[in-house]
Amino acid sequence: MKMEIEDYSKKIIIWPHPEVVEDLAQLRQKAPLTHCITNVVVTNFTANVLLAAGASPAMVVTIEEVADFVHIAHALLINVGTVTTFDAEVMLKAAATAHQTNTPWVLDPVAVGALEFRTSVVEKLMRYNPTVIRGNASEILALSGFGGGGKGVDATASSLAALPAALQLAERSGAVVALSGEVDYITDGKEIITIPGGHEIMTKVTGTGCALGALIAAFLPVTGRALRAASTASVMFATAGERAFRESRGTGSFAVAFLDQLSNLGSTGE
Amino acid sequence: MKMEIEDYSKKIIIWPHPEVVEDLAQLRQKAPLTHCITNVVVTNFTANVLLAAGASPAMVVTIEEVADFVHIAHALLINVGTVTTFDAEVMLKAAATAHQTNTPWVLDPVAVGALEFRTSVVEKLMRYNPTVIRGNASEILALSGFGGGGKGVDATASSLAALPAALQLAERSGAVVALSGEVDYITDGKEIITIPGGHEIMTKVTGTGCALGALIAAFLPVTGRALRAASTASVMFATAGERAFRESRGTGSFAVAFLDQLSNLGSTGE
Amino acid sequence: MKMEIEDYSKKIIIWPHPEVVEDLAQLRQKAPLTHCITNVVVTNFTANVLLAAGASPAMVVTIEEVADFVHIAHALLINVGTVTTFDAEVMLKAAATAHQTNTPWVLDPVAVGALEFRTSVVEKLMRYNPTVIRGNASEILALSGFGGGGKGVDATASSLAALPAALQLAERSGAVVALSGEVDYITDGKEIITIPGGHEIMTKVTGTGCALGALIAAFLPVTGRALRAASTASVMFATAGERAFRESRGTGSFAVAFLDQLSNLGSTGE
Repeated sequence: MKMEIEDYSKKIIIWPHPEVVEDLAQLRQKAPLTHCITNVVVTNFTANVLLAAGASPAMVVTIEEVADFVHIAHALLINVGTVTTFDAEVMLKAAATAHQTNTPWVLDPVAVGALEFRTSVVEKLMRYNPTVIRGNASEILALSGFGGGGKGVDATASSLAALPAALQLAERSGAVVALSGEVDYITDGKEIITIPGGHEIMTKVTGTGCALGALIAAFLPVTGRALRAASTASVMFATAGERAFRESRGTGSFAVAFLDQLSNLGSTGE
Repeated sequence: MKMEIEDYSKKIIIWPHPEVVEDLAQLRQKAPLTHCITNVVVTNFTANVLLAAGASPAMVVTIEEVADFVHIAHALLINVGTVTTFDAEVMLKAAATAHQTNTPWVLDPVAVGALEFRTSVVEKLMRYNPTVIRGNASEILALSGFGGGGKGVDATASSLAALPAALQLAERSGAVVALSGEVDYITDGKEIITIPGGHEIMTKVTGTGCALGALIAAFLPVTGRALRAASTASVMFATAGERAFRESRGTGSFAVAFLDQLSNLGSTGE
Repeated sequence: MKMEIEDYSKKIIIWPHPEVVEDLAQLRQKAPLTHCITNVVVTNFTANVLLAAGASPAMVVTIEEVADFVHIAHALLINVGTVTTFDAEVMLKAAATAHQTNTPWVLDPVAVGALEFRTSVVEKLMRYNPTVIRGNASEILALSGFGGGGKGVDATASSLAALPAALQLAERSGAVVALSGEVDYITDGKEIITIPGGHEIMTKVTGTGCALGALIAAFLPVTGRALRAASTASVMFATAGERAFRESRGTGSFAVAFLDQLSNLGSTGE
């Protein structure tokens, strides 16, 4: 079955502003403990994004503790960006535990399809039913098996071009798929939410995508709905990104202003 | 023996300003080599805090090198925030070496009591007599065994409520205890130093507490007195934190301004 | 054979400005995929430096993937700053693969000579013919065997004092040596390029030297000449550092402004 992009145009809706405000207020009140097993490049930025938004980050990454901590945490993020032999075991145990305890969790399958080891790790992680899968066009194309089993993955594929793959992946896996790109799309295989905005400079600061995965995780226990959690987190990122760009003088001050904007979002009812 | 908070009120003193100025000048002159074995979230921020203050940070974290480097270093920090199976072995070897060479060292028992593995690692580390133990109220309560062996640890416990535990822990272990919170308390089991100031926003930037542990370590070889080292480092943090808040526009610019303020402290005699 | 510093004075040339502009334009057009196996303190800053300059950073650090990724990458950086038992194996496999595939690579031998384990790792890495070796005076002295086999390594040695060692190391190894210090020198054993400028504050922000190694790696596939790649990257760092200092208020804002300046370099033909 070949799916055409235009088939979806009528289903696309824009995420409403009032729900974002409400969700953010809830996040700040509940400060969900968000367990992040993520890559070594973005740990600090991810923790600061979660703190700026109002969540409580915690990185617990050793095999002896990971299951216990999934029991304590309200949500889990697994990002395979710099996965090692040891991390893989930790991630699988975390995902298995989350599956067992019904802890909502986000899978960020960084560079899946491009390297064998992580592809096999991601395939195993998929068995534990991630609540949300967040990735760029290439990753979603690879993971969905679109375009011939991950071959021909195009790092420059647009998010719109990967939308059919996102829909199919969501339908098949039962996960909500958050597809990042110039425009973000979020889908459960039926509804499609589109998040315009943001700014291209976000691709010039490491970890913005990875940190979005963490923030989606933080919103999962707050909203109780994966589509809504991913949409609200994405709107926050797009809004903070746009505002931060206006007051930045390059990529360094953009990253700083982005955290400022996240921490100030909603404080004046905006 | 039940200890009441009011019993200590008469012993509490505020750390004097002239000693901070003197210690900071010494730190900048000596630039103590400060060996940090810390968690993956805060390595960069910790190194930048030490450099801003005037110390020389070094992270040496492999079992083959750790003992040799403790011999070279002037001070050691061990922070168990993201301890793994391998890190635990490295930390124990570092602590054993520091004990043997009389290298002053700081233990930061992140989340002790909350997870079994790190709790057992921290218990073993305690055998090597840390010079200073730095933690928040929950960690000091858990480590002291107050409130029933770590059970009922309250992450929101105030530092004042944990002061009796800090005193007992200091007395029993021989370490100076630096208890972080809205107000910082530092005690050797007899004297209690209180450090007012700082700003709540510091809890919204990851690594401020962890970096304080590192700065206390850096001051140990400079001052030669644990109570003084912990007090001076804490005053620097509170002062830089207050000043940084006044020029920040959110959590991102606060972290930047905090490093700026640390690097400028004392440069004009302030 | 004793070499005198003055012997080289006539060979020293200053890297010309037009070539930097041209190389930078090329870097931004090609966005070379730069594989970084670096220390845990500087991963984030290194990635942000590469992104600001216009390259594509990627940290792939597990034994299962490292060879495959060297095949995909345009350049490689190996920095032994926090090398562990496991990292050493990964680094050796990466270097062996780069040697085989003719992928240009930079070796940053952090603290070589000071600790046995990393010294032996660096010696093994040297067998795979790094394209560029980047280090400070102490590291270059230790690696060249000058001054008696690494003994008496002086962390405060000036870059000029280490220039004879750099020349000998370049001649013996076939690598271009990029010697960082108050003044940077770059040599292939015959020509010597000198890079004035920069600012002392760069030594107060962790990772500036490490990130320079990464940027040199990124320029290798773009320029096709190691001497030119190292020179252009060093000029960019010196220029961005000088400009950033003028708009900074301490070490925190300097790091931010440094990334801003890197991201803005060349955008107006400067």
